[in-house]
Amino acid sequence: MATLSVFLDVPLAKAADVPLDAYRADPSPEKVCLGHAGCQTDLEEVWIPPVVKRILLQIPEDPTLNHEYLPQLGILEFTRAAMELAIGKDSHALLDNRACGVQTNGGTGALWIGAEFLHHWYKPSYCTAPATVLIAAPHLDNLGCIFQVAGFSDIRSYHYWDPIKLTVDTEGFLEELQNAPEGSIVFLHAPEETGLTPKQWEEVAAVMEKKHLFPFFDIAAQGLASGNLDKDAWAVRHFVAKGFELLCAQSFSKMFGLYEERVGNLIVVTKNNQTLIRIQSQLSKQICMTWFSPTSLGARVIAMVLTSPALLYEWKQSLLKLVKRIMLIREKLKEKLRILGTPGSWEHITAQSGVNSFVGLLPSQVDFLAQHKHIYLLANKQINICSINSKNLDYVARSIHEAIVTTIPHIQSELMESSSENHEPSREST
Amino acid sequence: MATLSVFLDVPLAKAADVPLDAYRADPSPEKVCLGHAGCQTDLEEVWIPPVVKRILLQIPEDPTLNHEYLPQLGILEFTRAAMELAIGKDSHALLDNRACGVQTNGGTGALWIGAEFLHHWYKPSYCTAPATVLIAAPHLDNLGCIFQVAGFSDIRSYHYWDPIKLTVDTEGFLEELQNAPEGSIVFLHAPEETGLTPKQWEEVAAVMEKKHLFPFFDIAAQGLASGNLDKDAWAVRHFVAKGFELLCAQSFSKMFGLYEERVGNLIVVTKNNQTLIRIQSQLSKQICMTWFSPTSLGARVIAMVLTSPALLYEWKQSLLKLVKRIMLIREKLKEKLRILGTPGSWEHITAQSGVNSFVGLLPSQVDFLAQHKHIYLLANKQINICSINSKNLDYVARSIHEAIVTTIPHIQSELMESSSENHEPSREST
Repeated sequence: MATLSVFLDVPLAKAADVPLDAYRADPSPEKVCLGHAGCQTDLEEVWIPPVVKRILLQIPEDPTLNHEYLPQLGILEFTRAAMELAIGKDSHALLDNRACGVQTNGGTGALWIGAEFLHHWYKPSYCTAPATVLIAAPHLDNLGCIFQVAGFSDIRSYHYWDPIKLTVDTEGFLEELQNAPEGSIVFLHAPEETGLTPKQWEEVAAVMEKKHLFPFFDIAAQGLASGNLDKDAWAVRHFVAKGFELLCAQSFSKMFGLYEERVGNLIVVTKNNQTLIRIQSQLSKQICMTWFSPTSLGARVIAMVLTSPALLYEWKQSLLKLVKRIMLIREKLKEKLRILGTPGSWEHITAQSGVNSFVGLLPSQVDFLAQHKHIYLLANKQINICSINSKNLDYVARSIHEAIVTTIPHIQSELMESSSENHEPSREST
Repeated sequence: MATLSVFLDVPLAKAADVPLDAYRADPSPEKVCLGHAGCQTDLEEVWIPPVVKRILLQIPEDPTLNHEYLPQLGILEFTRAAMELAIGKDSHALLDNRACGVQTNGGTGALWIGAEFLHHWYKPSYCTAPATVLIAAPHLDNLGCIFQVAGFSDIRSYHYWDPIKLTVDTEGFLEELQNAPEGSIVFLHAPEETGLTPKQWEEVAAVMEKKHLFPFFDIAAQGLASGNLDKDAWAVRHFVAKGFELLCAQSFSKMFGLYEERVGNLIVVTKNNQTLIRIQSQLSKQICMTWFSPTSLGARVIAMVLTSPALLYEWKQSLLKLVKRIMLIREKLKEKLRILGTPGSWEHITAQSGVNSFVGLLPSQVDFLAQHKHIYLLANKQINICSINSKNLDYVARSIHEAIVTTIPHIQSELMESSSENHEPSREST
């Protein structure tokens, strides 16, 4: 037997940039992780709505559940209710039978199946195949790799965030869409952290219609931005109402506190029922080859909540409580920075909403926090607001203050750099 | 907004050939499904070992479990115990730290991640890239598609089953391996339904070593062939002992009665620890993009069973009981056919072991059963022995008898055809 490996040339892949790893490895007793993937309570526990906890206890006792493989496309009650949550029960696409949901292994599973599907079948005459993919700069590293492995080669980032004004740069965003190659696939985050207004979304839709851009929505935490599920779905509903064909990846992890259960849904909206049936058949095939059929537990919990008026009400109240807590943390952090006299305006902390937030820290300031203060942010420099709690708030605010004060001399040049930055997804990350 | 769909040209994919669908659609009260994917009890319920049922009730009550995302590669206690189950606790590959397991979404997830990995990284100098893939004829349709979508183009079937003698055709199998292009990837099923002897596996390994063929094992129901977990893993352990690098996809669905929980494990055995670490990093990346991290429930149950001597003992006893039931059904079916005077020898029914079985029916006989007797087999013409029970045994035996007697005049020509058949995976099935 040969002693050399046939895999001798396999390179070491860059590990997924998980802030928790650096945090765990840090021996300092002061360390703080502001980069949790999910939502935490003030006691640093995973936030799980009480109704979900209750159902998780009931399901194993239910003798009517049969434990066989689920169908490839998942639990129909779940995919239907999940889709209605996003595009609305009274959506024309639903009434016309030209929209469906496909249960996936988490939001990532929905992105993967969607990207693979588009690579195989999205070949409109007015664009080169494979099409150009546009991804918001902060998400380029994560999402770009998925599209790259699915077979797309022209993957670009777009900006909607002005790092100087610390607000949405709608003008710049519209200009980038205007200049995108016809037929490009545009990845849209809604509700997203920076909060486009309905009017701004209308402008985005108008440009996208004109340029035949294909919308792929990512709804990772519906309800957690405004506290209102319908309001947070405004953008995707507007696109559906305007007659767009689209894909939409839904994740339910944060909304239901179900992370390790891996529940996602890929929504397809197309022009008519015949096309939908053919698309469904292809998605079913893809799933059959990738994971055969989805897991049941999380989808069962969510289906039960969404289809029972009483449970739905209870869950919405829990969600609202979490959103209020998030806003309170935002206010407290802003107030602390004001009292400390931290240079700059911190209004954007409360002007934004949702779990993840651009606090407006520059790369050198993020590095300062990690190296000198043992504070770790999300890989894309955002903070998970739920990771701030009564115990660490003071320390976090003081540390941000120090990071800002210490790095003031270098700010101007770094700002220029960060506003002209043009990411490419890292090539080695297959 | 344009009224034509950009997905106008998406064709209808052939639905995965699920015998249950045809069975469900059949209104006949006599109908029998012999094509269940999993194991059933005599009462037509999903077989779940009592120890698994118990743990499924305990897990939601456990306050120490944290519900965060699992690591990309899964629960370490599970992947380690699962790997030890297959290659043995005292395997040199384990002692040398050059083998690992990676938790996947079911056996299919392990096949998919493995096929994708090989397509990216299996490029030995002595074979063209992408390499030829050899798959046993009865599994070509299912597995061929996975490799095809992963990017392999030269996918061939091999035969190890003599449809005339109704036994393993070792000579023919070895000859096919002998003639395979150097460096081909060979998909091996062990324990498989037809049961190669250790001596025959040794011959297979010798030819594969000589021709630099790469083994990709599929262990779908360890313990359910012989009732002995170690005996059923003999083949893969022999290959590891001989110094092969290999992949091995494990499914735990049938062994633990956990279907909708989707638990699989991809075992990697390579030459040294450094290579293993690099391979692991690539697999981690792939998983991060496909489903981000695996689900926890099923893997937790299995890890608890496999790492507790008391639970392990209990589970092994349950497994043994199931195997005894399978052998009893095989004996009863053979005896019924003998009493009916069904032409042909039916010794192979008891000579084989395991859940799925070639009963030796020709395509026309399988069609006869579906059309005239409302009896549905697995898509690859095998029978799931556990689907035969006290209620349907008589009817199944009489129907097989009728199918044989009715089709006798055509047998000779069909046999010739089926032994010279050379499948290709259906091209439209992406």
